[in-house]
Amino acid sequence: MNRIYLDYAATTPVDKSVLKAMLPYFSQKFGNPMSIHSFGYEGEAAVEKSRKITADFLHCLPDEVIFTSGATESNNLAIKGFSKKYHFSQPGKKHFIPHIITTAFEHHCVLNSVKFLEESGQAEVTYLPVYKDGIVRVEDVKNAIRDNTRFISIMYVNNEIGTVQPIEKIGKLIKDINKIQSRLGGTEFKILFHTDATQAINYFNCDVQKLGVDLLSLSGHKFYGPKGIGALYVKKGSFIKRIQDGGDQEFGMRAGTHNVPGIVGLAEALAGIKTQSRGFGTKIKIMTSLRDYLISRVLKEIPEVKLNGSKKFRSPNNANFSLANVEGESLILSLNREGIACSTGSACSTGSLEPSHVLLALGLPPEEAHGSLRVSLGKDTTRKEIEVFIEKLKKVVKKLRNISGNVLKEYK
Amino acid sequence: MNRIYLDYAATTPVDKSVLKAMLPYFSQKFGNPMSIHSFGYEGEAAVEKSRKITADFLHCLPDEVIFTSGATESNNLAIKGFSKKYHFSQPGKKHFIPHIITTAFEHHCVLNSVKFLEESGQAEVTYLPVYKDGIVRVEDVKNAIRDNTRFISIMYVNNEIGTVQPIEKIGKLIKDINKIQSRLGGTEFKILFHTDATQAINYFNCDVQKLGVDLLSLSGHKFYGPKGIGALYVKKGSFIKRIQDGGDQEFGMRAGTHNVPGIVGLAEALAGIKTQSRGFGTKIKIMTSLRDYLISRVLKEIPEVKLNGSKKFRSPNNANFSLANVEGESLILSLNREGIACSTGSACSTGSLEPSHVLLALGLPPEEAHGSLRVSLGKDTTRKEIEVFIEKLKKVVKKLRNISGNVLKEYK
Repeated sequence: MNRIYLDYAATTPVDKSVLKAMLPYFSQKFGNPMSIHSFGYEGEAAVEKSRKITADFLHCLPDEVIFTSGATESNNLAIKGFSKKYHFSQPGKKHFIPHIITTAFEHHCVLNSVKFLEESGQAEVTYLPVYKDGIVRVEDVKNAIRDNTRFISIMYVNNEIGTVQPIEKIGKLIKDINKIQSRLGGTEFKILFHTDATQAINYFNCDVQKLGVDLLSLSGHKFYGPKGIGALYVKKGSFIKRIQDGGDQEFGMRAGTHNVPGIVGLAEALAGIKTQSRGFGTKIKIMTSLRDYLISRVLKEIPEVKLNGSKKFRSPNNANFSLANVEGESLILSLNREGIACSTGSACSTGSLEPSHVLLALGLPPEEAHGSLRVSLGKDTTRKEIEVFIEKLKKVVKKLRNISGNVLKEYK
Repeated sequence: MNRIYLDYAATTPVDKSVLKAMLPYFSQKFGNPMSIHSFGYEGEAAVEKSRKITADFLHCLPDEVIFTSGATESNNLAIKGFSKKYHFSQPGKKHFIPHIITTAFEHHCVLNSVKFLEESGQAEVTYLPVYKDGIVRVEDVKNAIRDNTRFISIMYVNNEIGTVQPIEKIGKLIKDINKIQSRLGGTEFKILFHTDATQAINYFNCDVQKLGVDLLSLSGHKFYGPKGIGALYVKKGSFIKRIQDGGDQEFGMRAGTHNVPGIVGLAEALAGIKTQSRGFGTKIKIMTSLRDYLISRVLKEIPEVKLNGSKKFRSPNNANFSLANVEGESLILSLNREGIACSTGSACSTGSLEPSHVLLALGLPPEEAHGSLRVSLGKDTTRKEIEVFIEKLKKVVKKLRNISGNVLKEYK
């Protein structure tokens, strides 16, 4: 059976050019970049070249790029590394408790990191609403800021519903507030702004200067790079202390032997986004129209279906539906039997039987949050694949609804 | 110039068979193991097969194996994950402060993790001496145990001097003490025993039952597997809480998308150690005699040289010398110009100008701890390479001593 992959938000295949760039660093140029001999220099040169490519992509300095094992680690490092400023520095002294602002629909690696700080008394946290359209309001961010607010973490593109947050506007707001406070002499008052850009890298401008962020997380395997590698942008002068202790790698910010092939692959994948940039607008246009074709046909041809989240402020590769009287997991498993790979919620919380926290944050009732379908397109997705998908989806939904209808009848 | 690599303790090249096993998982079987569709199943099957191989190697259950990004993360997870039992669970309540026993010459990822807990008031720590031979005494471990001792971390093989610690004996001691305490009704009293086995995997028995350890760390790139992947063995029933928050991967013990090719590579590399096992004794014998040949010639043919650490209880691949009137970094750089790659101290602390903490722990004066040379052999190291190395070393040491002699004369 010809399989169709429509789960690019969960992970992407490594691009051929990326794998080719990685290959020499496994068995030939295998040195430890920290070693001071020719084998080490080869590794070091590869890491520093990759750091430069990553910095160019983000429009920052090379030493503002910290390589990690992925976005989960990057987000943990940003949040917990920030909180180290306020804790354990002066044992016995009563600690300042910083206030963190985030949203109700962040990825679990942000939410659970923030909750860890909250539950252990290391931070106060405000979880902003995201409304029915899945968009944070700048006004809400402004109103949530308190005297002790020191950290704001808002994702760039939501991983389940693909909605795009007004990062640049929030960045400007925070910069303005920091400026006023610094003029008032409050040198201690500075809010760090972090964005989890994991789902944004492929499609949106991630110039950190333009966005006005102090911290930005990304993960290689979401843009045709390898798994097990990511990065955190840390603006010069931002207090972030490492959370993984050990050697002096990554400017003392992240201990552990460099994953050289992974780092090289991450940079090559980023370069791929850039070098495609001339045709990139066109490619995004094609993908957007493919997505819109998919959305309009699904909404028209399947009864009782809703699109979740704003259609306008949305990643070009994402469609997320709620289907009445269909259970999400059964839907995915049935589609899989038809050769279609997509998802309900995010891959990271598959094991959980909880309804999607993202859809609950949008105000959906639990039964609707359980019956969601995420379809995410990739750079090689074709119109033909979308057409096959729609036919299979219609068939599967009909079948599942028949079963649930019969079950309901039996109980009547 | 034909280069000779003698720094296998810093990192190893990925074995051809390992890379071959990894390749399908980059671009073909690329699914996210958490996804519930056929692409995801392929990733999941690879991860679970690798987990089984790793468990077989360690002689434990598959769900006692947690994949991480390397030994640094494994060691951080073991130590900080343990300490979470005692902190933040009941805010406001006065906390029990556990006592940790470790050695003065652990890798920095253990030492700095333990120091973090110590400096933040989360643990009391005893650093055991390792004496001139670089071996921890079981008696010292016994004498250091207090009522509040809850964690003991002792490395299996030291990364700089290759000395082998009596892990099995310490394991037995701890088991006995835990048994007595449990009979006395102290259910709260249980000491967890952790070993960093990073440098041991290739050459020593790492059967966790035999060793009597509750936790064991390892890293792929030290035994011809890839960089960026490692594992932590966590014995069932040991309280270890995850330190990297996010999704539900790895039994909730380590969040973050699985590095599937890395995991497959790690397992294949471990399997390589096992399948070579019939010839393994022979191979180790050959390596040991090669190392002894190297040691005896260096001690005989170069004046004012000492071998650091026990010769008897020593990894077959390690030789570590102190050379009078030679500065370690100059020596490595000069050898590199001759095409020889070896190291002074560990690669992870290259950036640091401090003398090796390992050699200081052995009681060496700082000037000797600065002038050390680590030569570490690999599975393909030949007698010819060792012979070339010795000639180059003699030449370089003579030259450097002439320079330092002349400098000394000028100052007289």
